Amino acid sequence: MAFSLTPRDSAFYAMFTEAGQNVAASADILSGLLDPNANRESIAKQLREREHAGDSVTHRIMRQLNTSFVTPFDREDIYRLAAALDDVVDAMEAAADFVVLADVGKLPALMADQINLLVTSAHETADAMARLKTLRDLEPYWIEVNRLENEADRVYRKLLSKLFSGDYDALTMVKLREVADGLEDAADALEHVAHAVETIAVKES
Amino acid sequence: MAFSLTPRDSAFYAMFTEAGQNVAASADILSGLLDPNANRESIAKQLREREHAGDSVTHRIMRQLNTSFVTPFDREDIYRLAAALDDVVDAMEAAADFVVLADVGKLPALMADQINLLVTSAHETADAMARLKTLRDLEPYWIEVNRLENEADRVYRKLLSKLFSGDYDALTMVKLREVADGLEDAADALEHVAHAVETIAVKES
Amino acid sequence: MAFSLTPRDSAFYAMFTEAGQNVAASADILSGLLDPNANRESIAKQLREREHAGDSVTHRIMRQLNTSFVTPFDREDIYRLAAALDDVVDAMEAAADFVVLADVGKLPALMADQINLLVTSAHETADAMARLKTLRDLEPYWIEVNRLENEADRVYRKLLSKLFSGDYDALTMVKLREVADGLEDAADALEHVAHAVETIAVKES
Repeated sequence: MAFSLTPRDSAFYAMFTEAGQNVAASADILSGLLDPNANRESIAKQLREREHAGDSVTHRIMRQLNTSFVTPFDREDIYRLAAALDDVVDAMEAAADFVVLADVGKLPALMADQINLLVTSAHETADAMARLKTLRDLEPYWIEVNRLENEADRVYRKLLSKLFSGDYDALTMVKLREVADGLEDAADALEHVAHAVETIAVKES
Repeated sequence: MAFSLTPRDSAFYAMFTEAGQNVAASADILSGLLDPNANRESIAKQLREREHAGDSVTHRIMRQLNTSFVTPFDREDIYRLAAALDDVVDAMEAAADFVVLADVGKLPALMADQINLLVTSAHETADAMARLKTLRDLEPYWIEVNRLENEADRVYRKLLSKLFSGDYDALTMVKLREVADGLEDAADALEHVAHAVETIAVKES
Repeated sequence: MAFSLTPRDSAFYAMFTEAGQNVAASADILSGLLDPNANRESIAKQLREREHAGDSVTHRIMRQLNTSFVTPFDREDIYRLAAALDDVVDAMEAAADFVVLADVGKLPALMADQINLLVTSAHETADAMARLKTLRDLEPYWIEVNRLENEADRVYRKLLSKLFSGDYDALTMVKLREVADGLEDAADALEHVAHAVETIAVKES
C-alpha cells in the first residue's frame, strides 16, 4: 500500500475524498426529483446546502494548494480536479433550483434517464476519489465515466430533439431545455473530473 | 509603504489600476440604461469603446507577462486576474449591445437592481486594483464583492422566476433573459477578479 | 530552415499540423449545409467523424505533453493551443448536429455568411499550423483571423437582430439562434487558436 510522505498530502487526499462524497450525495438528492410527489423546494434547498459544503472543501483545497511548497500532484492538476468537482455540484444545484423557480411541471422520461446516469457516474467518481491516495484501479473508473458521458450525451440530444419537435409550447420548451442543459453540464463536469484524474495517473505512472 | 523592485513591476501595477478604472467606468455607462429616456445606441457605443480599451490593457499585460523573466506575482495569477477583468467589461458590453440589437423595451425593476449591484461592485474592484501594489486592505474588498455577488445571484433568480412566470410572451421572455444572463455574467466575472486577488494576497502573506 | 532538436518535437509539430487539417476539413464539410438540397444527416455524421479524429489527436498531444520532460513551447501554451483547436471542431459539430436534431429548416442568408467566414478562417489556421515548426510568417495569420472574427461578430449580431425582430415565431427563433451561437462559438475558438499561436511566437521571438 502506498503511503503519503507528509501530513499535508494526507490532507489533500482527505479533502478530495470529502469532495467526492459530496458529489455522490448531491446526485442522490437530485434523483429525488424523479418522484412525482417530491417536495421540490426541499430538494433544491438540500442541494444548496451541498453546494455550500462543496464550496467549503474547494476553498480549503485551494488554500492548501496556495500555502504548500510540495504537493502530491502537479498544482495545475489539483486545481483542475478541485474546480471540476465543484462544477458538478454547482450544475446539479442550478438544475434543481431552476425546476423550482420556473415551476417547470412534469419532467420528461428522457430527463429521468439523464438523472439516473448522473447518479451512477457520481458514485463511480466518489469511489475513485477515495483511491487517489494509492492511484490504484483508476483506469476502469475513467473509462466507465467516459462511457456514461457518451450515453448521457445521446440521451440529451434525443431530449432536445423532442423539446424542439413542436410538441411543447415555446415557454415550456425553453424551461425544460434549461433543466436539460444543467443536467448535461453536470455530466460534462463529471467527465472533466475523470480527465483530471487520468492526467494525474498518467504522470505518476 | 511597499515599493516595487523593478520598473516592470510598476508597469504591472499601473496596468491593473487602469483595467480597474475601466471596469468602474463601464459600470457607470451601463447604469445609464436605467434612465427610461436614455439614448441606448449611444450607451452601447460607449461600452464598445470601453471594451476596446479593456482589450488594449489586457493585451499589454499579456505581452509584459510573456516577455518578463520576473513578475511581482505568479504568472498564472496575473493571467487569471487580467482575464477576469476583461470578462467583466465584455459581459457588460454584450448586455448593452443586446438591449439595442433585440430592441428589448422597458427593463424590469429587478434588472435595475442587477445593474446597481454591478456599479457598487465595480467601484470596489477599481479601488482594490489601486491597492495591489501594497497588498493592503484587500480582504474587506473580496469579502464585500462576494457578498454583492450573492445578493446579485438572489436578484437574478427572482428575475428569472418572474420572466418564466407566464407574465411575458415567449419572445420578450427570451430577450430579457439574455440581458439578465449578461448582467449575471458580469457579476460572476467580478467575483472571479476577487478570487484572483485573494489567491495573490494569500500567497504573499 | 529551423529544425527540431528531438524526435518528440517533431511529433508535436506533426500532431498540430494534423489538428489544423482536421479543422479545415470540418469547415469544408460544414459548408455543405449551404446547399439547399444537402443531405444534412450525412453532413452531421461526417462532422461527428471529424470530431472523433480531433479528440484522438488532442488526446495524443496531451499524452505527449504529460510524458515529455522537454517541450518545444511552454506546456501551458501547447495545452491552450490543442484545447482551442479541439473546441473549433466541437462547435462546428454541435451546430450541424443541432440543425438535424431540431429540424431547423431553411438557413437565413446571414448564416451562410457566418459559415463562409469560418471556411476562410479555418484554412488560414490549417496553413499556420504547418508553419509552427519554423515560426515563420505567423503574424499575418493571426492578424487575418482576428479580422475575420470581427467580421463574423458583426454578421452574428446582425443575424441575432433579425431573429429577434419578430419575423420568426418563437420556436423557430430559438432554434436558429442555437445554430447561430454554435457557429459564433466556432469563430471564437478560431480566434483563441490565433491568440495561442501569437503567445508562442512572442515568447520565442
